[in-house]
Amino acid sequence: MQHAPMPALPGRILLTGAAGGLGRVLRPRLRARCDLLRVSDVATLEPAAEGEEVVPCRLEDREAVLALLEGMQAVVHLGGVSTEQPFDAILQANIAGVYNLYEAARRHGVRRIFFASSNHVTGFYRQDEVIDARAPVRPDGHYGISKAFGENLSRFYFDRYGIETVCARIGSSFPEPKDRRMLATWLSYDDLERLVVASLTAPVVGHTIVYGLSDNTTAWWNNTAARHLGWRPQDSSEPFRAAVEARQPRIDHDDPASLYQGGAFVRTGPFE
Amino acid sequence: MQHAPMPALPGRILLTGAAGGLGRVLRPRLRARCDLLRVSDVATLEPAAEGEEVVPCRLEDREAVLALLEGMQAVVHLGGVSTEQPFDAILQANIAGVYNLYEAARRHGVRRIFFASSNHVTGFYRQDEVIDARAPVRPDGHYGISKAFGENLSRFYFDRYGIETVCARIGSSFPEPKDRRMLATWLSYDDLERLVVASLTAPVVGHTIVYGLSDNTTAWWNNTAARHLGWRPQDSSEPFRAAVEARQPRIDHDDPASLYQGGAFVRTGPFE
Amino acid sequence: MQHAPMPALPGRILLTGAAGGLGRVLRPRLRARCDLLRVSDVATLEPAAEGEEVVPCRLEDREAVLALLEGMQAVVHLGGVSTEQPFDAILQANIAGVYNLYEAARRHGVRRIFFASSNHVTGFYRQDEVIDARAPVRPDGHYGISKAFGENLSRFYFDRYGIETVCARIGSSFPEPKDRRMLATWLSYDDLERLVVASLTAPVVGHTIVYGLSDNTTAWWNNTAARHLGWRPQDSSEPFRAAVEARQPRIDHDDPASLYQGGAFVRTGPFE
Amino acid sequence: MQHAPMPALPGRILLTGAAGGLGRVLRPRLRARCDLLRVSDVATLEPAAEGEEVVPCRLEDREAVLALLEGMQAVVHLGGVSTEQPFDAILQANIAGVYNLYEAARRHGVRRIFFASSNHVTGFYRQDEVIDARAPVRPDGHYGISKAFGENLSRFYFDRYGIETVCARIGSSFPEPKDRRMLATWLSYDDLERLVVASLTAPVVGHTIVYGLSDNTTAWWNNTAARHLGWRPQDSSEPFRAAVEARQPRIDHDDPASLYQGGAFVRTGPFE
Amino acid sequence: MQHAPMPALPGRILLTGAAGGLGRVLRPRLRARCDLLRVSDVATLEPAAEGEEVVPCRLEDREAVLALLEGMQAVVHLGGVSTEQPFDAILQANIAGVYNLYEAARRHGVRRIFFASSNHVTGFYRQDEVIDARAPVRPDGHYGISKAFGENLSRFYFDRYGIETVCARIGSSFPEPKDRRMLATWLSYDDLERLVVASLTAPVVGHTIVYGLSDNTTAWWNNTAARHLGWRPQDSSEPFRAAVEARQPRIDHDDPASLYQGGAFVRTGPFE
Amino acid sequence: MQHAPMPALPGRILLTGAAGGLGRVLRPRLRARCDLLRVSDVATLEPAAEGEEVVPCRLEDREAVLALLEGMQAVVHLGGVSTEQPFDAILQANIAGVYNLYEAARRHGVRRIFFASSNHVTGFYRQDEVIDARAPVRPDGHYGISKAFGENLSRFYFDRYGIETVCARIGSSFPEPKDRRMLATWLSYDDLERLVVASLTAPVVGHTIVYGLSDNTTAWWNNTAARHLGWRPQDSSEPFRAAVEARQPRIDHDDPASLYQGGAFVRTGPFE
Repeated sequence: MQHAPMPALPGRILLTGAAGGLGRVLRPRLRARCDLLRVSDVATLEPAAEGEEVVPCRLEDREAVLALLEGMQAVVHLGGVSTEQPFDAILQANIAGVYNLYEAARRHGVRRIFFASSNHVTGFYRQDEVIDARAPVRPDGHYGISKAFGENLSRFYFDRYGIETVCARIGSSFPEPKDRRMLATWLSYDDLERLVVASLTAPVVGHTIVYGLSDNTTAWWNNTAARHLGWRPQDSSEPFRAAVEARQPRIDHDDPASLYQGGAFVRTGPFE
Repeated sequence: MQHAPMPALPGRILLTGAAGGLGRVLRPRLRARCDLLRVSDVATLEPAAEGEEVVPCRLEDREAVLALLEGMQAVVHLGGVSTEQPFDAILQANIAGVYNLYEAARRHGVRRIFFASSNHVTGFYRQDEVIDARAPVRPDGHYGISKAFGENLSRFYFDRYGIETVCARIGSSFPEPKDRRMLATWLSYDDLERLVVASLTAPVVGHTIVYGLSDNTTAWWNNTAARHLGWRPQDSSEPFRAAVEARQPRIDHDDPASLYQGGAFVRTGPFE
Repeated sequence: MQHAPMPALPGRILLTGAAGGLGRVLRPRLRARCDLLRVSDVATLEPAAEGEEVVPCRLEDREAVLALLEGMQAVVHLGGVSTEQPFDAILQANIAGVYNLYEAARRHGVRRIFFASSNHVTGFYRQDEVIDARAPVRPDGHYGISKAFGENLSRFYFDRYGIETVCARIGSSFPEPKDRRMLATWLSYDDLERLVVASLTAPVVGHTIVYGLSDNTTAWWNNTAARHLGWRPQDSSEPFRAAVEARQPRIDHDDPASLYQGGAFVRTGPFE
Repeated sequence: MQHAPMPALPGRILLTGAAGGLGRVLRPRLRARCDLLRVSDVATLEPAAEGEEVVPCRLEDREAVLALLEGMQAVVHLGGVSTEQPFDAILQANIAGVYNLYEAARRHGVRRIFFASSNHVTGFYRQDEVIDARAPVRPDGHYGISKAFGENLSRFYFDRYGIETVCARIGSSFPEPKDRRMLATWLSYDDLERLVVASLTAPVVGHTIVYGLSDNTTAWWNNTAARHLGWRPQDSSEPFRAAVEARQPRIDHDDPASLYQGGAFVRTGPFE
Repeated sequence: MQHAPMPALPGRILLTGAAGGLGRVLRPRLRARCDLLRVSDVATLEPAAEGEEVVPCRLEDREAVLALLEGMQAVVHLGGVSTEQPFDAILQANIAGVYNLYEAARRHGVRRIFFASSNHVTGFYRQDEVIDARAPVRPDGHYGISKAFGENLSRFYFDRYGIETVCARIGSSFPEPKDRRMLATWLSYDDLERLVVASLTAPVVGHTIVYGLSDNTTAWWNNTAARHLGWRPQDSSEPFRAAVEARQPRIDHDDPASLYQGGAFVRTGPFE
Repeated sequence: MQHAPMPALPGRILLTGAAGGLGRVLRPRLRARCDLLRVSDVATLEPAAEGEEVVPCRLEDREAVLALLEGMQAVVHLGGVSTEQPFDAILQANIAGVYNLYEAARRHGVRRIFFASSNHVTGFYRQDEVIDARAPVRPDGHYGISKAFGENLSRFYFDRYGIETVCARIGSSFPEPKDRRMLATWLSYDDLERLVVASLTAPVVGHTIVYGLSDNTTAWWNNTAARHLGWRPQDSSEPFRAAVEARQPRIDHDDPASLYQGGAFVRTGPFE
């Protein structure tokens, strides 16, 4: 089916975590759709292209984050630690950092945020369960706990201050699924882009939690309750199945990483 | 995918509200599928074509309605007031009127009715919620209240007398979606026809409530519980998205019509 | 357990249906707790006692109802037809009448209403089912349909105008249970009074639906979701069980009145 | 959409009921995908092709069943009585038989079983209801009761011994839908094969119950909770609709077979 | 609170399993309330008292069971194996036996049965979960599987033939709770009697599943959905808590019997 | 009803926050039930009584917390900030602090923790809603967010390391209810003690969330799902109702503190 061209986004958008894997994917796609894209990261960023501003920033630096959001109309927040790490790193970047971001949004009147949450918020569900966003959280590590923190913080900023957020519990966003688990969790870059665009253009999102997966035949997550976003993924892990299954013909059933949705995260740590 | 030709309907069908917007759409489509189509309205109707009978009727006229249903095998009930109006008009046409219709059906042994209910039965849900037909009603005005009345009345006529009804909570049925809200609520004419046909030909419908929307990417309503009807919409508002968003680039977030599913109905009235 | 004295009610209360069975029970009990009790009915009323006003009124008379609510702070609405009757009587008193009442409340700024709904809103559930207020309505006749109408209307007046209502689906409120069905449905007069008082004094009720039954051992209705009202019935049908069972030793299992919660209502009518 | 080639199955698979309708369909399809297919039935079987072993066996013969599973890595259990019959036949083949099968699996360390359960486990739901696998069972006869037994037994073998089972409540698997009921219940042979393959290759299935129906427009069963299997049916009864409706234009609404999902099974018996 | 005397039962009642632990408890209590109590068991029974008949019977003997039910108006079915045993014994007494019983009930027109099911139908839920009768079954052994079979069979006999059954998933019915687990599962003999009486005298029970536990402070089972039975347990394990905890001060957390609701049943077997 | 003496607790218990309001209440009650009570706080503590150890400790000091848990068998964690405060204070004491606590528990093999969570985790639900612990969190401020963090962290420590926690969302624990809101939220000191004792002595608690309220007639929270704890509150706010209502006769309906469950917390802040 032929789809219409995607809509334009708000005029001035902040993209945090712009030097990361998904940040580099989204940067040119967002730039093409808005008036000004401000990109930020703690790591080194490509120089600003036309229509861009580059603003290095550490999320735990409250004043810097306050300055970072000035003049923005929306935020795509990918910043922070995105793997399982010792707690202290996550405490700074993902907990203090996300607080700084929302507080800055409140002060500057930013009304819409796309928050890159994670499937690891519910990583301790089994791979033979299909859950939706109302299932009680079962984080699989520090990272997942910090993403649950961000979801709850953004819920508060909506209930108290009216700032709308889409929390996207992203599965595995890579060029293609790499292993058996990703047959379920894969989110193509195009579907990721569609999700960000829908989240920023839907008239009303309130506080919405949605799982970020493509239209995979194998799925653990049900997004029926988020259909108001106007997002329907177009890609699927299915064409990659045969290759993936050939590459990983056996499953070790004694490995918790094979049993739980969070995969290897569920057995990372303790860090001592 | 190539679809089979649609099935024939019951032989003799009454279409009320035949002079209205949807009545004019359905009239030729139903006529082509049944032996006799009796069309009725309080407004002026086109003369009878072959296979048609034209019977003007005011729904609040009990005797007239009793006569209207004589000999019919099924009813497609679009009649009555279809916009928000002062209560008295709605009391007559939509409340007394729908009672007259079901009582006539009972007396004449009519066993299957398609009742044009409305999304305004649940218009006070927010646009960031996805509901199904079991969600408690939250009507957004006199019109929505009257449609809830019809749904409850028809539930009684099923439980007590076995008359089956499909209550279709129609969204916005127009040639194309006109505004951002209709990206969610649009029901194409073809999908409307498919819904009426499925409702009249399914072997068993009992008392079913279904939302009338096309296969839109943005959706507030979940029809999983009505899949027994055998209705799957084929159209979508998505091809119209870019044009609609260009035409209505901004949403006024202080306007309740932008926040609630019922749109402008939620702020119509009071009438004094 | 010793209970504290019950709280005072709003200062000026309107009691409709004051000449009916429950109206005569509640009249002195409410009068003792408020500054002014305005009592009204279409039937003849006892003369005004101290602290009372007597205002005869037909509910279908819109202007009279408008006058009736002037100066009131709360309404206990028992008025209208309370048995299964031909539709036209119910249409006037219970449908047009309840609309007149809410419209008058809106115009006069009355903020809290106790609406005497009925178990007949869900009378077509079976006697071996336990339901709560979220179960889809299954009215057992014109009366039940009209009460569902009042519930939906009051939902609208809350969502649109902020008028709070407690809809009490009253079971069988009599001095004692008279038959086997009432072992489940009985509501003692004291528990009824407690329910009205709680409904008028709870700080926030929004739009609440609650079933009106005493703390009976046999029960078809679950009020867990209405515990915010602060109502806990103190009486029980259990002490009457032996006498009731002796009086009605046999159940006719072929009688729908024995099978459905609505009892004899489910087989009253049709009226022709 | 082009789909990838299906994955290989476990190396050594037992197919019971291989002489029955579905057994004959699956036999060549499974043989083509595994190293060794052992086929078994109480009825006469075609001679072994290459890559096959033929082992006649009566399921009620415990020792024979124990021998039958030796060396197997997975079982596709279609064996037993598959129509409504007097209880004693079903007791032997379907109750004692399935116990023998699971006990043999436990002793031989077989870890994955596809169990052909049946829609008749829930055959007493109405045709206007859409249910999922959590709906309480309502079997429509001895056959349905025996299949519920197998589901419960396999649940125990998973909870206690870790043997994983997919219980597929197969609808009507035939070359094409034969009547109006099968528009809802039809499962194409290709979709059946896809279901068996997915059930045997998914990394984790635990104890999963799934309904076996194609992607039919009319549906009574919701498989959302089994999406982790990685099964998405590709066929549909819809292209056959016109022919089926022409062949069976009328429904006898007084026949329980027309009202309940189980069809004619609901009125088979009693056997005396 | 003072309770009324309990109601009389149907005139002629069959009690199976009358020689077992609970049979001996119920025998005199039922005899005192009905015209004729026929008691049966495969084990030796006390001689008939006045108002009793003693009829030895093996449940797997179909003809004998058919004779056993002749002339009865209700059955209290405690018969069969009541502990975890090798499958064959359970297959005969509990599976073939319960079929024989229901078939005899159908032939003789018996309309009401109390079926002693067991908490072992759901014994594989954890002790930190609170479930109700809609939770999917998770039997903990052959015994639990056979009781689930009886529940499903009785559901069929209700849906097909209108025979009503109360399936009571009895916890631990002893003079007093013996261990920590029984603080949750204990059912006093008086509460058991009340449950049987309520099950046989409630006007409508359809097919009801209820857990048999006293009003214990610790509870794993929620009977809200069975309040229509008119059963409210009066006793509690709480007064025995201190003694039980003193007797069993330690819990072995590595023992599955300490973790799952079924207690030691979950680790009985395999039998080889 | 006479209750049995309460059971003994684990031998060596750590009580954090022992200098706070609830800490001072629980300290002597716990000391009387265990072998050794180690009490800790950042504020000044009463000197150690017999059977006590006093260990001052700041929760954000990881090494100090590690030492604090050495040799303990259970923890009652009341420590940290317990009112709404600027984020930084809460980040240290309640977020870093609770992480330190659980990490110390993991290292020392402590298996059971009572975590004083708060009703402010769900403070943005309305006062006319009754919720249970599965309702999605809606924290009303930094404090509520930090308690949700602790709940999620403890869920992880259970799923990953098997450390059991009871998260008690305490309402308002004071000598008596002080205002209208506390008629719903009050938790008597005796009921608090019962809850702590039940949480530490129940054989299996897994990860349980329970609301801490007495058996109040007005209630917003449903603890049915936590009945496995063996906790049944014995007190009620009802005897205080008349005095409370006399003291606070009017509710300001324009004040969010009157509308939401969190009371004044919902309008505290922003802190700038």
